Amino acid sequence: MKYFVTGGAGFIGSNLADRLLNNGNDVIVYDNFSTGFPEFLNDAGKFKTFRVVRGDLLDIEFLTRSMSGCDFVFHLAANADVRFGTEHPDKDLKQNTIATFNVLEAMRLNGIKKIAFSSTGSVYGEAAVIPTPEDAPFPVQTSFYGASKLACEGLIQAYCEGFGFQSWIFRFVSILGERYTHGHVFDFYKKLLKTPGRLDVLGNGKQRKSYLYVQDCIDAILFAIEKSGEKVNIFNLGTDEYCEVNNSIGWICSSLNVAPKLVYSGGARGWIGDNPFIFLDCSKIRILGWKPKYTIKEGIIKTLSYLEENKWVLDRQ
Amino acid sequence: MKYFVTGGAGFIGSNLADRLLNNGNDVIVYDNFSTGFPEFLNDAGKFKTFRVVRGDLLDIEFLTRSMSGCDFVFHLAANADVRFGTEHPDKDLKQNTIATFNVLEAMRLNGIKKIAFSSTGSVYGEAAVIPTPEDAPFPVQTSFYGASKLACEGLIQAYCEGFGFQSWIFRFVSILGERYTHGHVFDFYKKLLKTPGRLDVLGNGKQRKSYLYVQDCIDAILFAIEKSGEKVNIFNLGTDEYCEVNNSIGWICSSLNVAPKLVYSGGARGWIGDNPFIFLDCSKIRILGWKPKYTIKEGIIKTLSYLEENKWVLDRQ
Repeated sequence: MKYFVTGGAGFIGSNLADRLLNNGNDVIVYDNFSTGFPEFLNDAGKFKTFRVVRGDLLDIEFLTRSMSGCDFVFHLAANADVRFGTEHPDKDLKQNTIATFNVLEAMRLNGIKKIAFSSTGSVYGEAAVIPTPEDAPFPVQTSFYGASKLACEGLIQAYCEGFGFQSWIFRFVSILGERYTHGHVFDFYKKLLKTPGRLDVLGNGKQRKSYLYVQDCIDAILFAIEKSGEKVNIFNLGTDEYCEVNNSIGWICSSLNVAPKLVYSGGARGWIGDNPFIFLDCSKIRILGWKPKYTIKEGIIKTLSYLEENKWVLDRQ
Repeated sequence: MKYFVTGGAGFIGSNLADRLLNNGNDVIVYDNFSTGFPEFLNDAGKFKTFRVVRGDLLDIEFLTRSMSGCDFVFHLAANADVRFGTEHPDKDLKQNTIATFNVLEAMRLNGIKKIAFSSTGSVYGEAAVIPTPEDAPFPVQTSFYGASKLACEGLIQAYCEGFGFQSWIFRFVSILGERYTHGHVFDFYKKLLKTPGRLDVLGNGKQRKSYLYVQDCIDAILFAIEKSGEKVNIFNLGTDEYCEVNNSIGWICSSLNVAPKLVYSGGARGWIGDNPFIFLDCSKIRILGWKPKYTIKEGIIKTLSYLEENKWVLDRQ
């Protein structure tokens, strides 16, 4: 199989590209390197079946040409930071919604009909049902990021109905692990390296969040694609647990052997649109037979080990 | 109050503008006249408190200038035809999703924080629960139109959370009545005038659809805005009944006094993405105290009377 991976120089994308290559596939990574790193493709570069294309998803003509000959698209490129939507309201629209439309059009023009998409548990907003299943009550959006991913899901589903596409849509919790380059574990680690005696925390630290280790995430994606064959296949991806921000701070401090003064900004939400409790019901994929190998705590510790051994990523942000 | 009505030269928009003016308000209609008609604003034009601006929602700078000084935005402009999404996949994205983003940005730049939006029952796709309530299970989109309206809803909700906007989102069934210029009653009427002996029908005629008379729709919109004050207020709007396409064909033929041969294209769906059963649970607004004055059949007959007296609209399409 020949796979096209958008955002393939990023955190999840580069790990996925490595896995696909090791499984004997051809891979084209398409990335604008706005947040991805060439270094993340060092392993992939050793394969003759690998090619990287530097390009932007908003350049639909170049995207369409670059996708030629592929069988399956993993669309992972996105503005993936949920926190800063109000600072640039058009960013999620362009980099997520319009970019996804371009990916779908490029697929249609190339006759490619299978797509896997990295959506997010943020599409549930502040969910009425927790743990939140895929068919939770029709949610109300609380972030520009979630709203844009919802728009992407809708577009993908319309292409499935209208043009005979088949899709796998994954609503992720936060993903952790090797090549992790943004999010709160990253931010806390970076801050504590600089000022081990003090840690500023957004909100009251009691926000309950869910995480999944990146290799578990990739296992789940490939497993679900193999095991499910509906026109539109939607899966929550997470572990069966959650933790408080204060828990993860504790694990990070313990791992770094620091005891900072914790300074909370206060409030149940760390930022506008922050969801104080994210916990997805993942029984749909669990019933198919997948389960995560790592706990949240193990995922965080693996992430810290990676950052410890790859301090260059801290300086490049 | 000074209202800004996008799509105000269109079917629902012009009826709404008339109502707002008659209620003593100032109204600015913003329309690109791609499907609206200047004639629909003849009544409005008699008011000194009325102004019409010919402009496109994709021209965000002009839109922002035009909106200056308004208190409340009714955003009705849209590509409103659910049927032809696959013929031009970018039309719903541009005219609905991006246009709505521009409306929201123009509001933000002008400090306007209240918006009412014409969404659609199509956002429920092929609903798992019928009659379908506002908090139905998270739907899967089946049309480009529905997907774009879903994207608009998400954007509006994100602006409510992120920028303190307040919104009223109305998920309409099909609306009928004076100034109705597209949809199946229009198409059937036009066809039967031309060839009274034959009527081609998309699908098997057994699709079950819901309709609401335009003045009932406007009553409901103004009622809901008055009676509900949440940050995000979502309401289904329809009657408590549905009819088969064959029923409406019967009423149309009876009204026109014709007995055509009915030629069905066959299948449960009239087109790709057609929903064979649309029936919304409107108890949320009914509980507040609104109820429709007209039945579906009465709405269709009023529509036919309008078309009979305004044949010019048939030629302008």
